[in-house]
Amino acid sequence: MCAVKSSGYEPLTENGAIALAKRLQLFDEKSNLTCNEIGDGNLNLVFKVKNIDTNESIIIKQALPYAKVVGESWPLTLDRARIETYALLKQGEFVPQYVPKVFYSDEKLAITIMEDLSHLQISRAALIEGKDLPLLSKHIGEFLAKTLFYTSDYGADQHVKKSLVKQFINPDLCKITEDLVFTDPFFDHDTNEYEPELQKDVEQIWQDEALKLEVAKLKQKFLTKAEALLHGDLHTGSIFADEKETKVIDPEFAYFGPIGFDVGQVFGNFLLNAISRHSEKQDVLLNHLITTWNVFVEEFTTAWKKDGLEIYTKVDGYLEYVLSEIFEESVGFAGCEIIRRTIGLAHVADLDTIQPYDRKIATKQFALTLGSELIKNQKTIKRPEQFIDFVKETVKQ
Amino acid sequence: MCAVKSSGYEPLTENGAIALAKRLQLFDEKSNLTCNEIGDGNLNLVFKVKNIDTNESIIIKQALPYAKVVGESWPLTLDRARIETYALLKQGEFVPQYVPKVFYSDEKLAITIMEDLSHLQISRAALIEGKDLPLLSKHIGEFLAKTLFYTSDYGADQHVKKSLVKQFINPDLCKITEDLVFTDPFFDHDTNEYEPELQKDVEQIWQDEALKLEVAKLKQKFLTKAEALLHGDLHTGSIFADEKETKVIDPEFAYFGPIGFDVGQVFGNFLLNAISRHSEKQDVLLNHLITTWNVFVEEFTTAWKKDGLEIYTKVDGYLEYVLSEIFEESVGFAGCEIIRRTIGLAHVADLDTIQPYDRKIATKQFALTLGSELIKNQKTIKRPEQFIDFVKETVKQ
Repeated sequence: MCAVKSSGYEPLTENGAIALAKRLQLFDEKSNLTCNEIGDGNLNLVFKVKNIDTNESIIIKQALPYAKVVGESWPLTLDRARIETYALLKQGEFVPQYVPKVFYSDEKLAITIMEDLSHLQISRAALIEGKDLPLLSKHIGEFLAKTLFYTSDYGADQHVKKSLVKQFINPDLCKITEDLVFTDPFFDHDTNEYEPELQKDVEQIWQDEALKLEVAKLKQKFLTKAEALLHGDLHTGSIFADEKETKVIDPEFAYFGPIGFDVGQVFGNFLLNAISRHSEKQDVLLNHLITTWNVFVEEFTTAWKKDGLEIYTKVDGYLEYVLSEIFEESVGFAGCEIIRRTIGLAHVADLDTIQPYDRKIATKQFALTLGSELIKNQKTIKRPEQFIDFVKETVKQ
Repeated sequence: MCAVKSSGYEPLTENGAIALAKRLQLFDEKSNLTCNEIGDGNLNLVFKVKNIDTNESIIIKQALPYAKVVGESWPLTLDRARIETYALLKQGEFVPQYVPKVFYSDEKLAITIMEDLSHLQISRAALIEGKDLPLLSKHIGEFLAKTLFYTSDYGADQHVKKSLVKQFINPDLCKITEDLVFTDPFFDHDTNEYEPELQKDVEQIWQDEALKLEVAKLKQKFLTKAEALLHGDLHTGSIFADEKETKVIDPEFAYFGPIGFDVGQVFGNFLLNAISRHSEKQDVLLNHLITTWNVFVEEFTTAWKKDGLEIYTKVDGYLEYVLSEIFEESVGFAGCEIIRRTIGLAHVADLDTIQPYDRKIATKQFALTLGSELIKNQKTIKRPEQFIDFVKETVKQ
């Protein structure tokens, strides 16, 4: 069930959210509804509307016309609500089990009404707490393979794919990634944020022309390679999970980009959590990384053989070429993610909550070395196991 | 001067073309106008409207809602007139000297009114007649460098570039290239057309899995690499020229693709003309190819250094990387162009008019070998001179 409606923008209140839910008949007419705004208020309002008799609940998410970052506001397009809605709907065609159901959306109000997932936990928080989330990587591997294959020229009609490219042109959100992932951390830019003890390590990155050349090539891929409809921000904070279930949320950065970017962000965030742990507890995360890749390959290969629409999917060696390209790019994008999460504007709690302080600094130094080495060694690392050896070698240095 | 107007579609007549020119005041009110339809009637109506007292003239080009190919009609989007108009206007911002002036366009009528270039000759015809067109490659090198650099992420604002990508989504015309350049000639497809004497050579191509794997990779680049606003159909039949002047016409295939595609089509068409000649007359064309590349590099480098908007344009080695990528892709795309012009649906007069018949067949066999070798040796050929040696070696075999 999804209807799309337009009107003028105004921010919702809790009472307005209840009224909207009633008007849309998302609950029985006589339901006793409560509402709490549970968002962090930085980018979006998030209302949880609940029937107190049945405990049924829904989420009404409304984009705000600005972002609050480092204490200041900057304007941010409301169009991201449209992108998020249509990305969820498109992904839901291929993996309904891994995305929230969308009940309603209103482009002008920048509202998406969807399934409430609060029985699950954000996977970053769960991993930081030391939970294993045993099915996380199997589910994410399948999510990646199916959402990416079926929106690419390999598995989508070429005409349909081109209208999707047009629908998902997303300049404002892409600009955030272009700046915060691929640019600012590699230059002395005032959005960067890091501890004074890292100054020397950071300057080493800024002066490393060979590293920056590789980042330039990765940024070029992000800017130009319209391979598939990416989630675009697939870190562990965009994944709700528990022992059995996994749901990928917040695809407001969705656009047509290189498949390796989504895969690489998953790799990067698993690695960030892994290195934040004491070495004897790292294997769970490293295995998650290997499983993500193996399941991705398996599901992508199945889809390719069963549903390949491009005639060249029948040509010997093309699948292997595409997979090796994706893997190589994933390694590089993972490196960028690790560096920007360490010294850029948007940090991750995995690193920032490490205690004591000395271990935090040492881990961040490891992170910078690891990120740089991944970026420089994209062509050397060919299999995920080798990737892991590489991580352990780097961390030991 | 360019106005854009909308209304319902109907095909123009010669009298209607005169009336339109008068209504738009493109001539003085009391002018004595004549009109001839000079198009080939396959894709477009082309009216030349002339003031018989002053000899001033203009061209009114109107897209037809179908294409006549191999005796049959298939529907073809009128949207290509919009694409052509906006591509001419965009290219005109960077190289007004190399594109016809646009005076008026009407999207619904699928009409573009532009400068009459009939004092020039289509460069394919001129080259077949043995004319040298001494400035052709210098002009085309500059046309390529400036139109491609200033619409790419290297030289365009990233937000502006993304709206251009959206504006130039061109699925119908791209599909023609995807099929006729990258697919049909490499499979036993009924659009292919070739002399019975070539059957064995053609089957060799169809059975060459290594070749087809390389074509798959090139097609992937064509489908996904949104690097710059291409002309999209830059063969010598899309270029008007004489000894002094060069004008690039017909950009209805324009879309955001890999820079190497435009460059490669130029290379491919120069090579097709070169191999159609007796060996002592080939150097003019081979030099045109070298000059195109050298001027392209020179102008692209100047633009990059002067107007690079991407911060990574300042990073050592990035320009060299981008240029070597473009060159490598150009070699491959040239190979595809040579093969499809030999055995695919749309032939070139350079080969088809060769006499006697035996020499024509032998040259077409050369063409297939040359095209295949270029595709397979993209990484070996690093400089245009080497490219030329390679051509001469292949032709001798």
